[in-house]
Amino acid sequence: MPEASLIAIDWGTTSARAYALDHGGAIVAERSAPLGVQRITDGRFADALTSLCTGIGSESLPMIACGMIGSRQGWVEAPYRHCPADFSAIAMSLTRVQGTRLAIVPGLMCRDVDGVPDVMRGEETQVLGILSEQRAERSVIVLPGTHSKWAIAGASGIERFSTFMTGELYAILRQQSILGRLAAEGSDDAALDQGVRRSLRRSAALSHDLFSARTLVLAGELAAQGVSDYLSGLLLGAEIASALRWLERSGVKDKLEPIVVGEASLVARYRRALALAEIDAMPGPVKAAAIGMWRIAKQAGMVRE
Amino acid sequence: MPEASLIAIDWGTTSARAYALDHGGAIVAERSAPLGVQRITDGRFADALTSLCTGIGSESLPMIACGMIGSRQGWVEAPYRHCPADFSAIAMSLTRVQGTRLAIVPGLMCRDVDGVPDVMRGEETQVLGILSEQRAERSVIVLPGTHSKWAIAGASGIERFSTFMTGELYAILRQQSILGRLAAEGSDDAALDQGVRRSLRRSAALSHDLFSARTLVLAGELAAQGVSDYLSGLLLGAEIASALRWLERSGVKDKLEPIVVGEASLVARYRRALALAEIDAMPGPVKAAAIGMWRIAKQAGMVRE
Repeated sequence: MPEASLIAIDWGTTSARAYALDHGGAIVAERSAPLGVQRITDGRFADALTSLCTGIGSESLPMIACGMIGSRQGWVEAPYRHCPADFSAIAMSLTRVQGTRLAIVPGLMCRDVDGVPDVMRGEETQVLGILSEQRAERSVIVLPGTHSKWAIAGASGIERFSTFMTGELYAILRQQSILGRLAAEGSDDAALDQGVRRSLRRSAALSHDLFSARTLVLAGELAAQGVSDYLSGLLLGAEIASALRWLERSGVKDKLEPIVVGEASLVARYRRALALAEIDAMPGPVKAAAIGMWRIAKQAGMVRE
Repeated sequence: MPEASLIAIDWGTTSARAYALDHGGAIVAERSAPLGVQRITDGRFADALTSLCTGIGSESLPMIACGMIGSRQGWVEAPYRHCPADFSAIAMSLTRVQGTRLAIVPGLMCRDVDGVPDVMRGEETQVLGILSEQRAERSVIVLPGTHSKWAIAGASGIERFSTFMTGELYAILRQQSILGRLAAEGSDDAALDQGVRRSLRRSAALSHDLFSARTLVLAGELAAQGVSDYLSGLLLGAEIASALRWLERSGVKDKLEPIVVGEASLVARYRRALALAEIDAMPGPVKAAAIGMWRIAKQAGMVRE
């Protein structure tokens, strides 16, 4: 096994994934464990860290972590940095965990024109893992998930971002609402497209359009097997329509080729939906968080190439 | 007790309310029972009807019911009538329940410009209870609830309507989402207004804006006691903004004074939110369903004045 020079941990709410990286930033080992912040009782984070590192590297290596481990519910709070934030700003804002070699990446906060805050924690590291370090051109990066993030990044690092509760809304509507009760197991790409298109139309109104997942079934125009994908399409279309308006207000108009990063089937679903809005999206690297942490650690002088 | 000439039952999903009305349409007795459609097992609707009538009138009187009792999950399905539908169309479409003197009011269906259906069942009767029978002017009627309805009614009866899942979205977000977990008990009118205003702004985007119920708390700018009302305000504002665009597309622009019908505190909340959109709404009659059923029954020749 090549020698590791850094342990990087993507440490979220429900699970944690630790990577050992060599001097060139290549992943030489990794392991995942159900040791997310919510699952650790009595503050036994140090034990969890030892467990995560076992077999992939030594705790004597420099260690870096991103995600909910730095939240108020995590090990040590790593306060939000304000946007814009580049590698340098983030690397200067790492929070050290006393008694360990671990440094935690801060989350980011930005504010819209009305001063209302938005936050991310973990995704900033993925974005930094996607951007080439010398990149000057503005990029749009989409991170689908429970709380999907759209980020605009450029020469000044991460300029701004916007969150959409797409994944969480889908889960609670599917599991708890009258719409979910109509749904049967099944997948239906045509129903997905139908939902996306409905939310992309000019007169879309989410809290009205969601009801059509019920009325189309009542009218015999949507099969129970299509309800889940139709609902997913409505929410995804609403996210895309709102995000495009947000990008336009943010001055991003031309040559929009967002990079979509995440689990393969989710990336495919987003690219399909974006294509209906005539947007050609590119898939991003799979292990963006590990790459991002390695780059931040390097910038912070924790590792040398 | 004045002599009753009609039993009218507002028979919903969870509860049922029966009214006895005299020859002039005045309510002479009423009773409510937890005998909603979902709570009746083994199809024992006839027993429920007997129980509802006990003490307020005789089952030998003509009886009329509206609401979910006429749905597929109800006693006998009363198929949806298409809009526009006036007293006469609805009175001609009552569904009789064999072996009883009960007639069930049909629900209504309308379709938007894309052909997507919307439905109501029970609210059509409330709307007819609000309209004066000779009214020619177009009216806008708002019925807040789990699935709020906005209806446009005029000389041709109920022309069209639009549903917003405001109440259900609030309930599941409050009970099941990350936003609800941040909320503490409490009410906060300023937070309600703040939510409404946020959703009324031009760049509003519901699945993004909802997340601000979390970020404002994280930033120390919204108290946990204000989260519920802020969330309610966001959803209510989104309903109002979408409904106003729908009304405009439907040709309703001038002198918009919607009538809001429902439970007093909900009507007050809607009027407060509508005022922020510079709309002066009027409260409607409290027992609109009973009035509507009496008028439909009269039109159907079931009762004589």
